[in-house]
Amino acid sequence: MKENIFENVKKEKPLIHCITNYVTVNDVANIILAAGASPIMADDSKEVEEITSICTSLLINMGTLNKRTVESMILAGKYANKLNHPVVLDPVGVGASSFRVETVEKLLKEVKFSVIRGNISEIKAVFNGTGAVMGVDASEADALTKENLEAVIAMARTLAKQTHAVIVISGAVDLVVGKEHGYLVSNGHPMMSQITGAGCMLNGVIASFIGANQDRVLDATTMAVSIMGYCGEMAASRAEGTSSFRMHLIDAMSQMTKEAFEKGCKIESIF
Amino acid sequence: MKENIFENVKKEKPLIHCITNYVTVNDVANIILAAGASPIMADDSKEVEEITSICTSLLINMGTLNKRTVESMILAGKYANKLNHPVVLDPVGVGASSFRVETVEKLLKEVKFSVIRGNISEIKAVFNGTGAVMGVDASEADALTKENLEAVIAMARTLAKQTHAVIVISGAVDLVVGKEHGYLVSNGHPMMSQITGAGCMLNGVIASFIGANQDRVLDATTMAVSIMGYCGEMAASRAEGTSSFRMHLIDAMSQMTKEAFEKGCKIESIF
Amino acid sequence: MKENIFENVKKEKPLIHCITNYVTVNDVANIILAAGASPIMADDSKEVEEITSICTSLLINMGTLNKRTVESMILAGKYANKLNHPVVLDPVGVGASSFRVETVEKLLKEVKFSVIRGNISEIKAVFNGTGAVMGVDASEADALTKENLEAVIAMARTLAKQTHAVIVISGAVDLVVGKEHGYLVSNGHPMMSQITGAGCMLNGVIASFIGANQDRVLDATTMAVSIMGYCGEMAASRAEGTSSFRMHLIDAMSQMTKEAFEKGCKIESIF
Repeated sequence: MKENIFENVKKEKPLIHCITNYVTVNDVANIILAAGASPIMADDSKEVEEITSICTSLLINMGTLNKRTVESMILAGKYANKLNHPVVLDPVGVGASSFRVETVEKLLKEVKFSVIRGNISEIKAVFNGTGAVMGVDASEADALTKENLEAVIAMARTLAKQTHAVIVISGAVDLVVGKEHGYLVSNGHPMMSQITGAGCMLNGVIASFIGANQDRVLDATTMAVSIMGYCGEMAASRAEGTSSFRMHLIDAMSQMTKEAFEKGCKIESIF
Repeated sequence: MKENIFENVKKEKPLIHCITNYVTVNDVANIILAAGASPIMADDSKEVEEITSICTSLLINMGTLNKRTVESMILAGKYANKLNHPVVLDPVGVGASSFRVETVEKLLKEVKFSVIRGNISEIKAVFNGTGAVMGVDASEADALTKENLEAVIAMARTLAKQTHAVIVISGAVDLVVGKEHGYLVSNGHPMMSQITGAGCMLNGVIASFIGANQDRVLDATTMAVSIMGYCGEMAASRAEGTSSFRMHLIDAMSQMTKEAFEKGCKIESIF
Repeated sequence: MKENIFENVKKEKPLIHCITNYVTVNDVANIILAAGASPIMADDSKEVEEITSICTSLLINMGTLNKRTVESMILAGKYANKLNHPVVLDPVGVGASSFRVETVEKLLKEVKFSVIRGNISEIKAVFNGTGAVMGVDASEADALTKENLEAVIAMARTLAKQTHAVIVISGAVDLVVGKEHGYLVSNGHPMMSQITGAGCMLNGVIASFIGANQDRVLDATTMAVSIMGYCGEMAASRAEGTSSFRMHLIDAMSQMTKEAFEKGCKIESIF
């Protein structure tokens, strides 16, 4: 599955339109550059369609949501769909407020996403918005364990079928689940949850990878999840605390080679 | 005074709702995580009450103020009061514009704060908004000196009595002043004023410490001020410039142990 | 040309009002501090005039533009003109949307700028907005080469005459062009284009340098361009990736001495 996916990002240098939160936006821009792509951040309704039209992918992140940017997300998302650009959604904190629940429902109704990424609680909240019924083991899961793995995979696959998106569930291990195939990625390090933005940065890397590999969204997403986790492992071995961890994480992405990544990536097929 | 305050943050992992400026928001989120707590940044009026209700503390920072977020600050602050959550105010640059003066007056009228933190000019501007009369020595102070120390303490104590908040004045030394007791904290390093965000980050640490120690706001605030200064001292000994100083500061917070902190903290009782 | 320009920044500590994008705002604030000046970020129309009045220079950056901040930019710009404060414009991505084209036209009509800085495409888009006719070699340029250098200089000089601003074109080498004189700066490193914000940070350094040297805008701008590039060279020699490069860049600015800079700067007069 890996062939050329990493190299295509460096070669194509896709331009990624990001409508993302103001907390981690700088890290998102820098990791996109480190991966070999280019970021454009633009969120005003007066220009998001034009900006999206000159880009390759669109990334929508619901952190620090506000009424003004929700309108822009929908405009940009619909226009990206019209142009057949891949669109990534991160439903940040979707369970935390009814404004976020409404927004994610509106987004799913108006925009077709290529990838939806979140932690298990966020993905479950998105699932619940679809009205489908979740197995008990998945509905009780607030972390991925051996015991609930099968049930969570089934939930993700149902969501993938309903939304036509690849579903990524980030955690101690990561699941990347499409309609026909799914992968378990074992890269990563606990320090990734001790900084803000590891998930947001991963969104940027996914948008870059699928932007340069538009006919292989599932594979490119899986590779993006794996490379991000592998950079986390490398950063953890050098970090002297959480802030130097963050720096080494982006450094590792910028220095990554095809050879090193192929040795380091831990991907297994689950169906 | 110190017993368990530091450990409680790690144990309780309080969730901190931050309505803060977009300049230093990433550092604030990362230092909250480094201290052992968790940040949520959300500033839209449609959701700030719900977000505050799932959190432990609320932090309001007036940097990059705008009309939209002022409304959110008041909604969130009132709701946090209703739920008895501690609320921290940083009246950033309050003397710099009449918009900021009006905002701080509105906030003080509508919201009860647990802690108000600023530099001496900001705290004096807040004091002036209360209409009380300040001693000449304090009114002329633009830095804390041996000569004006007593006058500034008296001003802070009057403000503490009027607002029922703990008053923190940050400077070369820091004052933490309640109605009944006050402390002088001698930790810190001049490099803290050569980066943006040292004060904003301190707000986050204070909100984390009082969130996990709600019955000991004065003591927890004092400890937060001391630990932040101590991390500054450690960072200065490793820094090769201001940006690596910032990294080492957050690293130090993330690696801090109870034992190291107890050796390093420099707190003295002043009344 | 160099006399005292660098030292004046440290001595005067000019206060810089920045209306800038939320992607790189933290880096802009930190590099302004590292250069010896002080930043204030404030973008609400209710206060931008007052904030500008207590500052030395104004910096307007069009990244992450929105309707609310465009109004603030114009209010602040006009007021800075009234007070004779130098104003820097970065027309970020001006070619990318009609909203940006309209905004730059409105800004140029309403506000007199001291410095306009961008990459070659951005400066050409600004030029086109003036209705003047560009030579073919310049109009085809998307990077500065030996072949198009003369044509690009001529374009920049025409723009300098029309706007009364110093024009800075950032690239592999940088041009700093006034009505009467122009300079080529050969400092810099390719890694500067692998992080977000190198240009935004340069704006901050320019605003600091001209704030402290208001009667020598062309020379101070040239020095700012050179010092930023020189810090990039120093950072590249220490970096282990793009994120540590960013850190070393700001570190280098904060540690820069007059002596080191005089050895390192590479400025040549072009007319």
